[in-house]
Amino acid sequence: MSERLILSVDAMGGDNAPEMVLEGMELSLNKHPDTRFLLFGDEPRLTPLLALHAKVAAVTEVRHTPDSVKGTDKAAQALRSGRNSSMRLAINAVKDGDAHGIISAGNTGALMAMAKFVLKTLPGIDRPAIASYVPTNTGRSLMLDLGANIECDAENLVQFAVMGEVFARQVLGLEYPSVGILNVGAEDLKGKQSVKEAAAILQETDLPIKFYGFIEGDDITAGTVDVIVTDGFTGNVALKTAEGTAKLFGTFLKDALTSSPVSTLGALLARPALNRLKMRMDPRRYNGAMLLGLNGICVKSHGGTDALGFSNAIGVTADLITTAVNESIKADYARLHEGEPTQHSEQTI
Amino acid sequence: MSERLILSVDAMGGDNAPEMVLEGMELSLNKHPDTRFLLFGDEPRLTPLLALHAKVAAVTEVRHTPDSVKGTDKAAQALRSGRNSSMRLAINAVKDGDAHGIISAGNTGALMAMAKFVLKTLPGIDRPAIASYVPTNTGRSLMLDLGANIECDAENLVQFAVMGEVFARQVLGLEYPSVGILNVGAEDLKGKQSVKEAAAILQETDLPIKFYGFIEGDDITAGTVDVIVTDGFTGNVALKTAEGTAKLFGTFLKDALTSSPVSTLGALLARPALNRLKMRMDPRRYNGAMLLGLNGICVKSHGGTDALGFSNAIGVTADLITTAVNESIKADYARLHEGEPTQHSEQTI
Repeated sequence: MSERLILSVDAMGGDNAPEMVLEGMELSLNKHPDTRFLLFGDEPRLTPLLALHAKVAAVTEVRHTPDSVKGTDKAAQALRSGRNSSMRLAINAVKDGDAHGIISAGNTGALMAMAKFVLKTLPGIDRPAIASYVPTNTGRSLMLDLGANIECDAENLVQFAVMGEVFARQVLGLEYPSVGILNVGAEDLKGKQSVKEAAAILQETDLPIKFYGFIEGDDITAGTVDVIVTDGFTGNVALKTAEGTAKLFGTFLKDALTSSPVSTLGALLARPALNRLKMRMDPRRYNGAMLLGLNGICVKSHGGTDALGFSNAIGVTADLITTAVNESIKADYARLHEGEPTQHSEQTI
Repeated sequence: MSERLILSVDAMGGDNAPEMVLEGMELSLNKHPDTRFLLFGDEPRLTPLLALHAKVAAVTEVRHTPDSVKGTDKAAQALRSGRNSSMRLAINAVKDGDAHGIISAGNTGALMAMAKFVLKTLPGIDRPAIASYVPTNTGRSLMLDLGANIECDAENLVQFAVMGEVFARQVLGLEYPSVGILNVGAEDLKGKQSVKEAAAILQETDLPIKFYGFIEGDDITAGTVDVIVTDGFTGNVALKTAEGTAKLFGTFLKDALTSSPVSTLGALLARPALNRLKMRMDPRRYNGAMLLGLNGICVKSHGGTDALGFSNAIGVTADLITTAVNESIKADYARLHEGEPTQHSEQTI
């Protein structure tokens, strides 16, 4: 593989694909000008679009794929019959060493199933997890799992903690990131059996994980810990509840500010500030969910996102590659079972 | 029991008890002037406070209790050794027919354990659930369970659905309230076994429950359904995540509006509107979690609330009593097992 970042992109995934995908690629080139793309999709549709995006066309190789995975396809079905889909062939490119990572805004279940099947999990990791940034009072934290694993045992949660901690260290550049497990109370005796067992393991581990203990739902946005560990069911509900609440707050704010001529004038004066607020809560800023624990870099963009959101997902992919997260997860996980203290890795590609 | 509403109040529960409790009682008398109170707590502390609240004193009978449950007490411990606590004796008053309902801002676990032990569950209900209002885009919805039952099977979730539906009909006055089960996707095939089984039972029931199907986290605040059914672990995390997100949004809004002199001026002009927004998102408005499924009315106020929040919890208690929710839950649940269509009950006390 060359020194240059080569990203494999599923052109056909997402509500507004492939137009949105190409626009997102163009935006991302501003931040990561050295990127090259392998673009998988329907060539007759992509060729005229590339003509509109000369900057993208200059660094992109199109690979025609006859099929694409639909949003309504079941994961197992996509895995069986999607062997020639843009998603599957984009993943294969990572496996084959043609690209350093893959991004898709397509069907999450299908992406998870295909990526796990093609790339396999890292040694010691039973199940990959979906991880994403969440905005907090102090910046941002990483939360996982967000829906890949509906039911998790203690060992799964411990694996998520190891992966999340490595991520926060390598990608976020935190020296000693803190890790908390989401629970219904801060006391040791509360909660599900699986979270209690996972906490006990993390309290005794020799890994240099700064285990904070249990956190509650309101600790997520408070920024109490750098890494929030939970099962995929709870994580998915919590993330979507937070999105819904932010949206409700936005609606209420708009209602309030248009409720009288004076408040409308006030809102007009405060518009730059309100735009800044909107920007801080913008879900597109946090777009790009990482499938951690795979033997290869795979990032899922929100299906309904726009070009800006997609470009952020590309940025997340680039970060994962350049910080060599997978190498560190492998090393730390091996050490967890050997009981040896870890060395903080400095590897990059 | 007289026609007048008689409420049993735990004077010693909550961070700012007993002062906050008495102030809350005074506020509630504006809305419910016909209430009488039985006030359980440390008489030497309560007597001088009642002297400051003449309106409350006029309708209150103090019953001295030597002990009180601490916030840090374990539920089992409180149940064993709290027989003379203000919380326990306040619950006993409902059991003995001296009061129509009980409110406490004390230790949730202890209140749940004591109320279940003393009042018992309604016929057909295995486990009581904690239910509360949540603010939505269209008004408010009812969500349960919020933490009483960490792990729930399908039958528990069905019981929550029945209780929640009756509540929405009787207390919120909705003719055909819709009920949804919180899940990670709207499709029938997604999610945990327990939620899939519960959905199957609700789809086939002869009860006139308008079962919407599965909802996701962002549907909570969107007001997609009137009643949101979930297990106590997920419900507790979702509720606290929503609280945390609202708080984060508030902080970001404040930051934005004080970021420049012009936006500060704008905020000043929009202040009445912003205060209205604050009021709409005020958690005190939604204070008063109901322990549904008990053979008696029991309401838990947030421990950290103030007088306004406590007065709302008293209002919730009054609503539960005057709308005879428990009678209807009993009737509907009996019909669920007989398979007979229900008649909408009109009973009130």
